Amino acid sequence: MRLRIGFVGLGTIGEPIANNLRKAGHDLTVWNRTPSKAAHIVSKGGKLAGSARECATGRDLVITCVSDEKALDTVLEGPDGVLEALRDGDVLVDMSTAGVRAARSVSERAAARGAGFVACPVLGSRSAAEQAQLVLVAGGPAVARERARPALHAVSARIFELEDAAQAALMKLCVNAIGGAMITGFGEALALGQAGGVPVAKLVEVLQASSFHSPLYLMKGELVERRDWAPRFAIALAEKDQRLAQEAAADLGAKTPVNDTVRRVFADAAQSGRADKDIAAVAELFFEWVAKT
Amino acid sequence: MRLRIGFVGLGTIGEPIANNLRKAGHDLTVWNRTPSKAAHIVSKGGKLAGSARECATGRDLVITCVSDEKALDTVLEGPDGVLEALRDGDVLVDMSTAGVRAARSVSERAAARGAGFVACPVLGSRSAAEQAQLVLVAGGPAVARERARPALHAVSARIFELEDAAQAALMKLCVNAIGGAMITGFGEALALGQAGGVPVAKLVEVLQASSFHSPLYLMKGELVERRDWAPRFAIALAEKDQRLAQEAAADLGAKTPVNDTVRRVFADAAQSGRADKDIAAVAELFFEWVAKT
Repeated sequence: MRLRIGFVGLGTIGEPIANNLRKAGHDLTVWNRTPSKAAHIVSKGGKLAGSARECATGRDLVITCVSDEKALDTVLEGPDGVLEALRDGDVLVDMSTAGVRAARSVSERAAARGAGFVACPVLGSRSAAEQAQLVLVAGGPAVARERARPALHAVSARIFELEDAAQAALMKLCVNAIGGAMITGFGEALALGQAGGVPVAKLVEVLQASSFHSPLYLMKGELVERRDWAPRFAIALAEKDQRLAQEAAADLGAKTPVNDTVRRVFADAAQSGRADKDIAAVAELFFEWVAKT
Repeated sequence: MRLRIGFVGLGTIGEPIANNLRKAGHDLTVWNRTPSKAAHIVSKGGKLAGSARECATGRDLVITCVSDEKALDTVLEGPDGVLEALRDGDVLVDMSTAGVRAARSVSERAAARGAGFVACPVLGSRSAAEQAQLVLVAGGPAVARERARPALHAVSARIFELEDAAQAALMKLCVNAIGGAMITGFGEALALGQAGGVPVAKLVEVLQASSFHSPLYLMKGELVERRDWAPRFAIALAEKDQRLAQEAAADLGAKTPVNDTVRRVFADAAQSGRADKDIAAVAELFFEWVAKT
């Protein structure tokens, strides 16, 4: 089914998602704070809106995909914002990782305009997004999810559906909290091994032979070996995800000592000039810490 | 090649290893602090020694497999200990996870008696040990590794060989440090999700669809769902491994905030009566922490 889609946010993940919606034949209008990022999509037939509001006006589906809950509020609120455009029966899907509080709050604000809301955080890197192989966790009312489904299928390998937007948001934070523990534990162990003369490649090889093996270690181990810190998933975003998990934990009364430490490591990595580097660069931070002691 | 093997330590991992050495046709003599654990092996033709020293006397290969560095010293030292039995050209293999300091120290003590030493910590559970599917990291002089090889092959799926005993010991600690971060991060996230209404099974399913997937989460997720805490790998041993990693890190000047936290979680779990439960039971601790806040 061909949908008229308004897509707001053409960042690392948003741009390839929007591009796949275009390729799937949907009628695509995009908006981005920096319009130059829309050039490729517009050259292929997508339309460029003059504001988030215009992008969201008169669409079958409005999708937002931005970096965090503040960026989300910026595109949603105000006279030029998405919410201003929503009418009764409209559907808004947010593919950002904006946390549980944002999922609840946007859900309420959309409902106040008669619109259905689906929190739909994505799992996967830019390359997964490019290949339409993302994993989606879509939470919201059945009728809104049904409207969104053709678009979500066009960009993903797999969709997990939940009744509740807040639970979808929480699910994503939980998965990324685990990923955060994995990558920081990995970087720390690589530095410990290296300090004792164990090469990174050898340690990754043994790890991958154990029941702890994971595609993450294979991918990130290669990056660490090459000292390639180009951002597939930037440390600043990982730190934000851990912050949102802590916020959710505080609201739910959960104790998260591991997450607290992981967030501190990401924060240290960001503050030492690695905010825009890939999460694999936490290894570099641990290498530096060994060298300095 | 049929070896005369003295095997000391018939615990959770040692017993199936020794049994596979017997099945592979080696001439096996065993010793264990609690002799009843030798019953099965003796009924199948293994010999039971009266002391660790007797077990190690006149063998082509002596293997120890005990719980930690203290237990190792107990079977090695004293008039009835393994070291007393070692002669020039003998080979001692330790399959315990006893840490880097122990690997260095045992290596020196064996060398003082003219014996070669291989630190050979194992990766894998009891069921991997039963199926001769362990992963081994064997570190020591080439001539000693060569002597040990037929025995090591008989009990493992894969052997990584290193020149240095201390590096083999460190390798194991690094891999288990990563595993510790994985399982504690997992338990914490399951509790956070559950507090927000996300069922364990659903969270594991989404996690396994992500690039963070690992056999560990599949195995331990099922245990958490069933609240089955029978020890495949006990929390007390996991806490010991983290302690040994911290010790190694202190010696090497490496900073390990993640490991520090993981060890604290394991210690809390042990102190709350879960020392002999499986590491999956850290999830139970986190569930309890949510309930109490």
